[in-house]
Amino acid sequence: MDQLTKFNSATKELITAGKLLYAKGWVPATSGNFSMRLDATRIAITVSGKDKGALSEHDIMTVDYNSLPLDDKKPSAETELHVVLYKQFPEIAAVLHTHSVNATLISRTSGEELRLSNYELLKAFHGINTHETSMIIPIFANDQDIARLSKKVVMYLQKNPSIHGYLIAGHGLYTWGRAMHETIRHLEAFEFLFECELKLKGIR
Amino acid sequence: MDQLTKFNSATKELITAGKLLYAKGWVPATSGNFSMRLDATRIAITVSGKDKGALSEHDIMTVDYNSLPLDDKKPSAETELHVVLYKQFPEIAAVLHTHSVNATLISRTSGEELRLSNYELLKAFHGINTHETSMIIPIFANDQDIARLSKKVVMYLQKNPSIHGYLIAGHGLYTWGRAMHETIRHLEAFEFLFECELKLKGIR
Amino acid sequence: MDQLTKFNSATKELITAGKLLYAKGWVPATSGNFSMRLDATRIAITVSGKDKGALSEHDIMTVDYNSLPLDDKKPSAETELHVVLYKQFPEIAAVLHTHSVNATLISRTSGEELRLSNYELLKAFHGINTHETSMIIPIFANDQDIARLSKKVVMYLQKNPSIHGYLIAGHGLYTWGRAMHETIRHLEAFEFLFECELKLKGIR
Amino acid sequence: MDQLTKFNSATKELITAGKLLYAKGWVPATSGNFSMRLDATRIAITVSGKDKGALSEHDIMTVDYNSLPLDDKKPSAETELHVVLYKQFPEIAAVLHTHSVNATLISRTSGEELRLSNYELLKAFHGINTHETSMIIPIFANDQDIARLSKKVVMYLQKNPSIHGYLIAGHGLYTWGRAMHETIRHLEAFEFLFECELKLKGIR
Repeated sequence: MDQLTKFNSATKELITAGKLLYAKGWVPATSGNFSMRLDATRIAITVSGKDKGALSEHDIMTVDYNSLPLDDKKPSAETELHVVLYKQFPEIAAVLHTHSVNATLISRTSGEELRLSNYELLKAFHGINTHETSMIIPIFANDQDIARLSKKVVMYLQKNPSIHGYLIAGHGLYTWGRAMHETIRHLEAFEFLFECELKLKGIR
Repeated sequence: MDQLTKFNSATKELITAGKLLYAKGWVPATSGNFSMRLDATRIAITVSGKDKGALSEHDIMTVDYNSLPLDDKKPSAETELHVVLYKQFPEIAAVLHTHSVNATLISRTSGEELRLSNYELLKAFHGINTHETSMIIPIFANDQDIARLSKKVVMYLQKNPSIHGYLIAGHGLYTWGRAMHETIRHLEAFEFLFECELKLKGIR
Repeated sequence: MDQLTKFNSATKELITAGKLLYAKGWVPATSGNFSMRLDATRIAITVSGKDKGALSEHDIMTVDYNSLPLDDKKPSAETELHVVLYKQFPEIAAVLHTHSVNATLISRTSGEELRLSNYELLKAFHGINTHETSMIIPIFANDQDIARLSKKVVMYLQKNPSIHGYLIAGHGLYTWGRAMHETIRHLEAFEFLFECELKLKGIR
Repeated sequence: MDQLTKFNSATKELITAGKLLYAKGWVPATSGNFSMRLDATRIAITVSGKDKGALSEHDIMTVDYNSLPLDDKKPSAETELHVVLYKQFPEIAAVLHTHSVNATLISRTSGEELRLSNYELLKAFHGINTHETSMIIPIFANDQDIARLSKKVVMYLQKNPSIHGYLIAGHGLYTWGRAMHETIRHLEAFEFLFECELKLKGIR
């Protein structure tokens, strides 16, 4: 695929993902942001502040690996959080950041990490083949200083390279995968598990 | 735009908003009412008692800034509550009044005001740039005397001009914005935050 | 309208209502049954055991005021519960019987009646103009003997003619109105109020 | 019907069921698997790891009664759990295995069996004609050794041939019926009853 074809194809996948995630209630009120790796120099990412359920091709832009825009649009304030993931994990191709009620609540009521075990659905995550395991999801304090938050995330990921997502307290979830469909599968699995955990906690 | 074009355009936006809000369950059983500012003398508003998920162009009418109908239709009983908002806030263009389960419950269990803090989604409100803030939503006692209720609201707004919405106990939410899409964004953010707060309270 | 036109028109309204109610989750697993009054001798009603979200014109039949079929189809086992309502209330035109989770739970946890007050949405019921009222919904014990249950309902209605619906414990809701759209409005209001009450009770 | 027609018809039913069940949230993150009996030697079943809401004809394959693939696709890891049901119950034609939040939670909080009684909706199950009965749903410990789990299930079914479904703890539900529409009816009834029971338990 040439550069333009690749961008157009990523744009289509980002728009479709946005419709699905908005319908599920995971990106309300223009929250959330999505990206896809295009190649070694470019990442496609959603423009700041758009309704994720009604993205158009004009709402997708490109940035480089320094989080700098490659066109004249304004990227999401959280662009750097996407970029560090693509740098850290050479195999991943899509990152979704969402703001669901369940992610918000679990992130505010679980301390510094959430530990999940004994769920068949853990097998939805790449590399997990049994429910007889335990998965840890780190929870970082929310921070409007994205550079500082990015550094914290990178330090954690370097020590814990096998995780599939993390939470920011009172804010939401970041998850990733080797293709958009894998990232969506991880997201659906996380949301399922958050809902189970919250109900077991009796929070609702 | 001439007068008719403006009315037709507002009508389309009101019908589209109605479908979205009904699908979300926020205007059940013909409840709720919506409006848009047309110009310095006219406001478009939903006719009384219509199914908000199936509005037609005949279900939208115009009123003046004295809440009086400019055509032969019957405006919502709560027209004055819309009009006082357009008078109070010259910059706003759209008002949505909804009756969700969560707005009803939070308004019955939070005393005279709801205070929200530490949510990233607070940034969905115009003028808020950080989660490290605290937002207050006043809760007024329900009252079938709309003139009396309107006066209470106006007195509150004059002292607290920076709020983005208010609740009426056991009744619902009023919210507004500089365009329909901003008002919908505020509404989605309020509903998200009400759901979070209710679950944290353990009410459900 | 001639007889056939009337039947065809009622059939359309019943099919449309079925789609809406199934989508809301109020008639799962082929549960529920719906009817409309055609004239002084005939009532249109859903055939027994059909998927209410996918009704076809073949799934609607006619019965008389003795609950006897006027064609060769098998009417709902609960036909008599519909018929007694049409006899009791000459002004009503449509009856909906639904089986939602909320109706089931509220009917199993509220004793012999549910009392609702201080909800703006009470105004969705025909004849109620203020939230400053209190509405009673009787709850009958479930009974597979529909003739016996019908008699109990009739006795209650004769003493309490102003109610808009009743519950059968562990089973579901009956509600009615002067047109299908009014019955749907009553149903949506009941479901809204049941959900509020359950959450306030902390049942969920 | 010839063999190919039968396969095509089953494929259509499986794809349609997948869309419905995904929309309801019962097969998130590619979880779940579905099958239909074709004849005395062949069963149609979903291919391993596919998104159940977007199945295509290429995602359905055939296996024999030894759980062995009859084409070059990879069947679901849980194929044997489907096959033993078709062997045990000659009258059934469709099996659905789902992973809902409610099935997961009820299976983790109800010990070795769930007992349901006093629900009108019990009548949705084939052979049950009254709410005045009590239905038992066995709950098996989760096991990645499907052959071992299948044996446990068969032993239970031989002693308890009148059940309509079973749970695997932290995993999900298996249910079956004499046609796809009956299996879907059973599934909807189970999901309804799980939700009721969970809310009554106060888990949510």
